[in-house]
Amino acid sequence: MRNLKLEIEYDGTNYCGWQVQKRAKKPSIQEVIEKTLHKIIQEKVKLIGSGRTDSGVHALGQVANFKTKSNIPLKKLQYALNSNLPSDIVIKKIKEEKPNFHSRFSAKTKLYRYTILNRKYPSVSLRNFVYFSPYPLDIKIMRKESRILLGRHNFRSFSSSDKKTKNMLRTIKKISIVKIKDLIYIDIEADGFLYNMVRNIVGTLIELGRKKLPPGSMKKILYAYDRKGAGPTAPAKGLCLLKVRY
Amino acid sequence: MRNLKLEIEYDGTNYCGWQVQKRAKKPSIQEVIEKTLHKIIQEKVKLIGSGRTDSGVHALGQVANFKTKSNIPLKKLQYALNSNLPSDIVIKKIKEEKPNFHSRFSAKTKLYRYTILNRKYPSVSLRNFVYFSPYPLDIKIMRKESRILLGRHNFRSFSSSDKKTKNMLRTIKKISIVKIKDLIYIDIEADGFLYNMVRNIVGTLIELGRKKLPPGSMKKILYAYDRKGAGPTAPAKGLCLLKVRY
Repeated sequence: MRNLKLEIEYDGTNYCGWQVQKRAKKPSIQEVIEKTLHKIIQEKVKLIGSGRTDSGVHALGQVANFKTKSNIPLKKLQYALNSNLPSDIVIKKIKEEKPNFHSRFSAKTKLYRYTILNRKYPSVSLRNFVYFSPYPLDIKIMRKESRILLGRHNFRSFSSSDKKTKNMLRTIKKISIVKIKDLIYIDIEADGFLYNMVRNIVGTLIELGRKKLPPGSMKKILYAYDRKGAGPTAPAKGLCLLKVRY
Repeated sequence: MRNLKLEIEYDGTNYCGWQVQKRAKKPSIQEVIEKTLHKIIQEKVKLIGSGRTDSGVHALGQVANFKTKSNIPLKKLQYALNSNLPSDIVIKKIKEEKPNFHSRFSAKTKLYRYTILNRKYPSVSLRNFVYFSPYPLDIKIMRKESRILLGRHNFRSFSSSDKKTKNMLRTIKKISIVKIKDLIYIDIEADGFLYNMVRNIVGTLIELGRKKLPPGSMKKILYAYDRKGAGPTAPAKGLCLLKVRY
């Protein structure tokens, strides 16, 4: 049995997310790739993703692995997958890994990017990949407020999940906010993320940048351990899973 | 009467092109903007574009003008247009022009860009905006061969129109071929373009870059004044009207 690792780019617009969802009207990315693999290698495989991405969220570097008896050369498999997958899913790399490699459990950190288009008019080519905001955003305030999130914290205030018992400790290793021309990139790298955590942090940062929340609010919100204090969940389409590190 | 000039960005994927086409299954960009203007200013206007773009061709800087009795402030009009237009059409600028300004007749040059993605696997986010070619392309040969096209020539060999009598003299002011990472940008600026001229030139350049045509072919093709010698018409989706100069 070979253990094959895929690096995957996708546009999440037309999917219910990475994972199969019951009663979803759109297919999941995982099932589309599994079906295409089945067609090519004539074998039913279980594709393990590094983690779920929600409906409408994109990936430039999602990682998934599967075990197979097939001896198909990797270049041939990549070519066949990209020829048969819809154009909004692309396999960027395929590599053979050790038998114990597991996309989810072996992952050390994940890096997400949230992109805001901040100018007077929207963009055509980026319309599914950015959140458009025509309002002035104070990047310096956003950057300063974001620093309190670095390190190990209970991120309950930024979780959309209502399961009270769950361990909500996560470690944010890096958070950077950069503006290049009209685009604001918010990059967050952590050892794991709670449900909607990046989008809830970004929603709060936008409120701070628009001065709808006073400076110092991020600290108060973080230590309140209560979702109600934080800003709204930023739209899915601005979010992209950039990289999974092992 | 005010004469208003629009600068327009659009994704041509879901349109039959700039101009209204009989029996087209998709709407034209022109008619969608005209209808939206009608809705906002309660006046039927005739929108004059700088020129047609074909089905599937994009624009970052299409220019169009129309005359109106409306006194609506320009910022308000831009906001209302962008709020009411579909997300694949965006009005980037609105400016009042002199009464004799005409988007088509006043244009001095147009600059088109053709983009080729040249790597092993396609791109998800660029899938509607680039032509994907996984084959090695010799940029130096393409650049050298392209130089013969500079200046005033009869471009019959690169016209898909079969009207034999039409004046096919055009002046190419600039042609540049630049590779940045996996993307090849072919920029062509001219005082006017024949039907499919950029796409036929690009199709020929690709054949040269792939060494399916020997060096020196561009000159032979240009002076043959015959469409049959040139390469195939490159796909519409790689083409974008970047700028119209006045």
